Order: sequence, then C-alpha cells, then structure tokens
Amino acid sequence: MFTYILDAKSKTPIYEQLYNNIKRDILNKTIQNGDRLPSKRKLATHLKISVLTVETAYEQLISEGYIYSVPKKGYFVNNIQKSVSITKSDTVPIPIRENLTRSDFKYEFKTNTVDTENFPFSIWAKLMREVLRDKDKELLNKSEPKGLYALRVEIAKYLKAYRGINCQPEQIIVGAGSEYIINLIIQLLGEDKKYAVENPGYHKIAKILSAYNINTEYLPLDSEGISMEHLIYSEINVLHVSPSHQFPTGIITPIKRRYEILKWAYEKNGYIIEDDYDSEFRYNGKPIPALQSLDNSGHVIYMNTFAKNLAPSLRISYMVLPWELVYKFDNDFKFYSNTVSCFEQYTLTKFMEGGYFERHINRMRNIYKSRINTIKDCISSLNSSVSIKGENIGLHMVLEFPQNTDIPNFVSNAKNNGIYISDINEYYVKGRHYCPALVIGYTGINNEDIIKAFNILKKLGLLENE
Amino acid sequence: MFTYILDAKSKTPIYEQLYNNIKRDILNKTIQNGDRLPSKRKLATHLKISVLTVETAYEQLISEGYIYSVPKKGYFVNNIQKSVSITKSDTVPIPIRENLTRSDFKYEFKTNTVDTENFPFSIWAKLMREVLRDKDKELLNKSEPKGLYALRVEIAKYLKAYRGINCQPEQIIVGAGSEYIINLIIQLLGEDKKYAVENPGYHKIAKILSAYNINTEYLPLDSEGISMEHLIYSEINVLHVSPSHQFPTGIITPIKRRYEILKWAYEKNGYIIEDDYDSEFRYNGKPIPALQSLDNSGHVIYMNTFAKNLAPSLRISYMVLPWELVYKFDNDFKFYSNTVSCFEQYTLTKFMEGGYFERHINRMRNIYKSRINTIKDCISSLNSSVSIKGENIGLHMVLEFPQNTDIPNFVSNAKNNGIYISDINEYYVKGRHYCPALVIGYTGINNEDIIKAFNILKKLGLLENE
Repeated sequence: MFTYILDAKSKTPIYEQLYNNIKRDILNKTIQNGDRLPSKRKLATHLKISVLTVETAYEQLISEGYIYSVPKKGYFVNNIQKSVSITKSDTVPIPIRENLTRSDFKYEFKTNTVDTENFPFSIWAKLMREVLRDKDKELLNKSEPKGLYALRVEIAKYLKAYRGINCQPEQIIVGAGSEYIINLIIQLLGEDKKYAVENPGYHKIAKILSAYNINTEYLPLDSEGISMEHLIYSEINVLHVSPSHQFPTGIITPIKRRYEILKWAYEKNGYIIEDDYDSEFRYNGKPIPALQSLDNSGHVIYMNTFAKNLAPSLRISYMVLPWELVYKFDNDFKFYSNTVSCFEQYTLTKFMEGGYFERHINRMRNIYKSRINTIKDCISSLNSSVSIKGENIGLHMVLEFPQNTDIPNFVSNAKNNGIYISDINEYYVKGRHYCPALVIGYTGINNEDIIKAFNILKKLGLLENE
Repeated sequence: MFTYILDAKSKTPIYEQLYNNIKRDILNKTIQNGDRLPSKRKLATHLKISVLTVETAYEQLISEGYIYSVPKKGYFVNNIQKSVSITKSDTVPIPIRENLTRSDFKYEFKTNTVDTENFPFSIWAKLMREVLRDKDKELLNKSEPKGLYALRVEIAKYLKAYRGINCQPEQIIVGAGSEYIINLIIQLLGEDKKYAVENPGYHKIAKILSAYNINTEYLPLDSEGISMEHLIYSEINVLHVSPSHQFPTGIITPIKRRYEILKWAYEKNGYIIEDDYDSEFRYNGKPIPALQSLDNSGHVIYMNTFAKNLAPSLRISYMVLPWELVYKFDNDFKFYSNTVSCFEQYTLTKFMEGGYFERHINRMRNIYKSRINTIKDCISSLNSSVSIKGENIGLHMVLEFPQNTDIPNFVSNAKNNGIYISDINEYYVKGRHYCPALVIGYTGINNEDIIKAFNILKKLGLLENE
C-alpha cells in the first residue's frame, strides 16, 4: 500500500499531491510496469482521504497514460520507457539574458527611424476610443484575408490621388509589415523564380530571399537606376526596384528607363516588385507617378508601407497585385488569415476617412522640407566641395564627396563624437564600387540638432575638403 | 509655340495643366525626340502665365525624365520609347467585386470560431485606454524582434503554471498568428527538412508547407496518437503534432507514446513542432503537461496562440524554441521586425499581469464545460448508439457513430436545416479511412442553441440509429 504524506494545508489540492507522488514512483520505477495499484476504496481508507480524491488522481494518471484501468480488475501501471539518452545536449551554449538597453548616439542621421515626435497622437487616440466604443464585438472577429475592405477602399483612393495608381480594393493585400508582404510575394510567385535586387540597395529583401534558399542577383545601377544592360543579359525574372527614390542613392528613374523596365518584364513575362516606401514625400513639384501607373500589362507588384509615413510600431504594409496574381491569391492563398489586428485596421481606416492621414503627410512634408533646407544651409556655409543628391523626394539624401575622401574614417570619427551617419558603401553587397558618399536620414533629428551636429562635424574638420 | 487652353478656375494648378499637356504631346509624339521646347520666358509670355509656373512644369517633366535641359541651350525632349506591345492581356479575367456578405448557418458547431460574446471587452478597453494614456510615444517604436520583453515574461510565467513548461523569455518569439509562426519555423529549420503532419489533422500546416514547395508526409494515427511504426520508418525529420488534444480526433497522447516520439526526435536529430492550440481548456483534472516539458534534449518547438483563448482578431501567437534554435534565430533572423503591433502587445501584457487572462480562461472553461454537458445530455436523452470522444479537453469533441452510418448524408441534411456540423473525414488528406464520426465545436454556440439544434437533428431522425 502507498504511504504518502499529504498536506491538507498546502495550496496544491490533495488529489494533485497524490497524483504527483504516484507519478514520481512510476518514473522512478518504484512501482513498475504491470503493477496493480490499490483499489480506490482501499487507498482512500489507508490515506484517510475521500474515494473521489483518489479517483480524480487516478483519472489524471490515466489521461496522461501512466496507468490504465481494466474493468472489474483494477488499475495497472503502464510500460513507460523513458529514453535513457535524452539529457541536455552539451553543445548548446548557456543562455544569456537579453540586453534591452539601446546604445544610441546623441545625433542620429539614421534612415530607418520615423519622426514619432510629430505623430498626431491625440487624434489617433481619439479614433481608437471611437473604434472601441462603436465597433465592440466586430473587433473580435478576423478581418477578410486580404485585410479590412473599408481600409483597402481608403488605400485605393490614396494611391489614386498620390501615386497615380488605378486599382480596385480587391487588388490590395494588407499585411503585418513589408517583410511579411515580401514573404507572401515569394510564395505567390513560386520559388522557381530568379530574383534580382538593386546594388546598392535595401539589404533585407536579399536576406528574406536567402531565408527561402533563393539566390539573388545584385544588379548595378547607372545614373538612371537599374542598369538595363545587366538586366537584359541576366537570367532573372523578378526584379525588386525603388524607381521613385532609390535607396540609398536617391536616384529617380526617368520615364524612358521606366518604360524600358516595363518592356523587359513584359517580354520576359516576369515581375517587377516596385517598392515605393517613401515617395509620398516629394518636396518640389507634384509626386512622380508610380511605375505601376504606367503598366497596362500586369507585370508590376506595387508595395508600400505605413511604417515610414505614420509609425513603425504600426505593422501595416500593403501591396497591389496585378489581376492575374489576384486570382492566384484568391484561389491558393486565402487560407492565410490576415496578419494585422482588426482594431488597428479600423483605426487606420477612420484616420484615412477623416482626412487625418493626408493632413499628416502634408504636415510631415513641411517638417522634413525644413530639415532638408537646414542641412543644405549647413553644407553651403562650409568651404567644402560636397554635393547633394536625391534631396527632392523621400526621407534621406546623399552627400557626395570628392574622389579621394576617406569616408570610413569620417564615419568612425563622427560616431566617436556622438553622431551617427552612414557610408553609402555599407549598402553595397557585391561588386562593391567605392564611392565617397554619405547617406543622411533626417526623420529622427530636428533642425536644432542638425545644426549642432554639423557644427561638431565642422569643428572636427570633417567637412573641410579644400 | 505650344498653344494650350489653361483654366485658371480649375482645381488643378496651372503648372500641372501645362505639365499634363506637354507630357501628353510627348507621349503622342506631337513633340518628338530631340525637339527643343520654347524657352521659359517665351512660353510664359505666349500663354500669359508667370515664368515660375513654366519653370515648375519643366522641372516636373525633367524629374520624370520626359525632357532634359542643356545649360545655355534650353530644354529638349527625351527619347521615350513606349513598348508598343504593352496592352491589357486578354487572358486576365474581368475583375469581380468582392462578396462581403457571409452565408452563416443558424446553428454552428464550428471548430474555428471563438466565443466573442464572453470576451471581457470592458476590461480590455480599460487596459487599452491605460496603455494609450501611459505609454504614449513608446507605442510608436517597434518592439524587439522577438516581441515585447515584458509580454514574453508573462507568457513564460503562464506556460510554467498552465503547461508545466520551463522556459526563459529569450526562448519565446511572438508573431502575428500561428501561420506566421509556421512560416518562421520553416525558414529557421531550412527547406531541406522533410516534414510530416498528422492525418487526419489541421490542413493549414500542409498548405503552408506546399506554399514553400515542401512535400509533406501524412502520418496515420492509432488510438494513442501518431503511429510510431509509420514515424520510425519514414524519411522525415520534422513532425507537427498536437499531443494534448489532437485535432480533429481529440486523442490525448499518453506518456509512453510521448517518450517514444521524443526518443525518435533525439535519435533522428529531428524536431517536433508541438501545436498546443487549445489545451489550457481541460475540464476534468489538471492540465496535461506539454510534450515540451518532458524534453531535455532540445528537440521540441512549442507553439500556441491567443486566437483560441482570447480573440481571433488579436493576431498574437508565439513559439518556444530550444536553445540551439534561439541562437540560430538571434544570429540569422533578427532582421525580421516583429509583426505584432506594439499597442496590442502592451495591452495583452497588462491583461496577463493583472490576472485577467487567468480569470478569463477559468471563466471560459466553466462556460465551455456547461456546453459540453448540454451536448452530453442531448446525446444521452436519445435512443442512439453515439459515443463521445475527446470531450475532457480543448474546444471540440467527436461523436462516433456505428459503422454503417451515412455521415455525409447526415451532414448535408443538417446543413439544409440550418445546422453547420462537420464530418471527421473532411480532415483526412490522404489514405482516407472512412470512419463515421462528427466533429463538434462548441465555442460559437450557446446552451440554448445547442438544445434547439439537437431537437432539429432529432426531428430529422438523424440521431436515431437503432
């Protein structure tokens, strides 16, 4: 008979204490394969507990497979063969606690930040409260696989007005961030495709492709964007480009080259992934129409994000598919639930419907424009031969230096003095071609700090080249 | 000289009207490659507009590459070769407007719904407002790639208490839904792996694998879960299982089989993906510990979701990685931004910290238990030989019928009478083995409707088998 010490005052229920004791004895082989357990009544009397308590413990042991019951015969121990060799592998290193502190610079000319200081927080919060009040239970249901229809209607309107794109809400697919959208595109196009990205370019695309074991070609740029010579003689059939404001060079691909790229896609029956991540921010003249708006043959997948123009914490990006791929998505990929929370989809819809989004873009455009002018003033006040490129659009610009400038030294010197600034050569992956230039993001730094940072750079002699 | 009619009263600015006219003429070849445009001053005088207006229009045409300027010579038309053949492909079908109405049944015994009626909406809204008030600008920054640390601390505590799992927050990765988590796992393990899923089972896993062009084996089950014989003689090295409450059969894999599966993974140096989607809902006895809690050798990837126990609109799922994969993730996959909005991560953290999550689970357990009892009462009041399986855990049960029952007929008859109920055979993918059984989900139907639905089934003679 089992004799266990059961503690009636413990937080652990008696049945659970009994279960734990018997389980331990089975795993210890104190009670062995085939052994019969005492009947419920006998054990209850022995331990001075209720029959129900024993029964609950036995039921749990049965559920987990430690014992089994034979009607009219009783309870028996199962054959539990623990695999001897299963012990902690010593090849696995010791866990390290995540380091959550961030090492920030005092002045950051980063390209991957967004000005959250100027986010219309009170309006957003107000709309969130309205959604909470009005939507109630609708918030708990999943949205359509492609995203909330009302949101896609607003995105289509916005694309028409700002990017010259004619599309139906049915062509739009909303997803949790641009990286997720790229994942969907890869799956939608199939893995037999051959991809190319711009070099220099946005690293992550190639990283995602490599996570799929897809080799990526890196195509060089000329002064008008992707080099047609390299494109035409490549084996690829999917091209990722940012023609409206190439990252990091800032090149705006002219209309002729755009038609050439479209022609390539048409003749090769390939696809162009047009990444239009920052081109609503055009500071002079009207926006340059998207490549997608020139495409009548259905070879452009347009993608954009709210991370750059609203807030990076909102994981909301989207793409516009040509109809052929819309049908493929509807047939084969609707099993994927939408990845964006309904709550934020409703809030963003209201934000767009109410005209707040347009106002925000216009406001940020003025703020960024004034920062660009501050940087230009800082540069022109210097006795240096720095020239500025790509400053009329987007969220970064390029400063080009004379051929013999030691940019890596410049960058490390600046960093040592609390200024984060990046060398354009960091964005070259293969076929690295040394060009002395800096990439300047101005979304995370205000006018005052821009002036302070440039004064430091000046004092360090970093901007005096002549 | 260009003679365009420009409308000063139009909403479209004069410069844009001028730009549109010249652009159209270039595309029409009315003005041709190499043609010189009138000087800004001349055109301004001719059209009676300001020089600045002409300059703005010309600048836009330059940005888009329609024209170019030669210093001291003037503005010239670029060579725009529109590819003739780019016209709408006629193989693409005509777009159809999305149908947004849902065809619902009056009574639904679905397994993919969640009881949103009982969601603690006012508490959730209160916490959301607190987050809005307290967090402010933190809400706009991205969370750590693995998810908010504070949330992962809460998940680790919960897993310890409810599922017997010992893990560190560093091992947990939060993502936008289980399908996204599966995507991450596939990329993390690499595509050279061979996968198997349970048959019958949860379809989506195989669909995702197929989107990666990965062939999936379908392993049969015996009464204790995955068939060891088939597992051992298969070529596979990654196994997706739901040992705590198999979907759809409801099988709870006993401890012996669990150790056998672990031993298989250890010897094959493979991985088990333990999908623990509904096992916090245990109605008798304490929860059955997760397979992960028995694993000392680092071969189990545990995954779970808040979609089933909270709300499907919250796209928040997570996985617990063995340390070896944690290091791989940290090295190779941290470039992926987290896919869940910061705002909802903060709210969920508060919900868990405040004990609301635990209370909600306990409350829902009681509600679901009462529904199970209602179904049992409905069945036992009938003169039928239906037996119930898998009703002690999870969010669905199985009704088994005598061998000769025509289940497809039963299901279609029920559907014609407004009752959604599903045939277990729908979940078999290959090696379809006919077994007369129904899968009953009770998350989307209350006690009153359960009784009404069973009365209808009874009247239809569908539950009288003898």
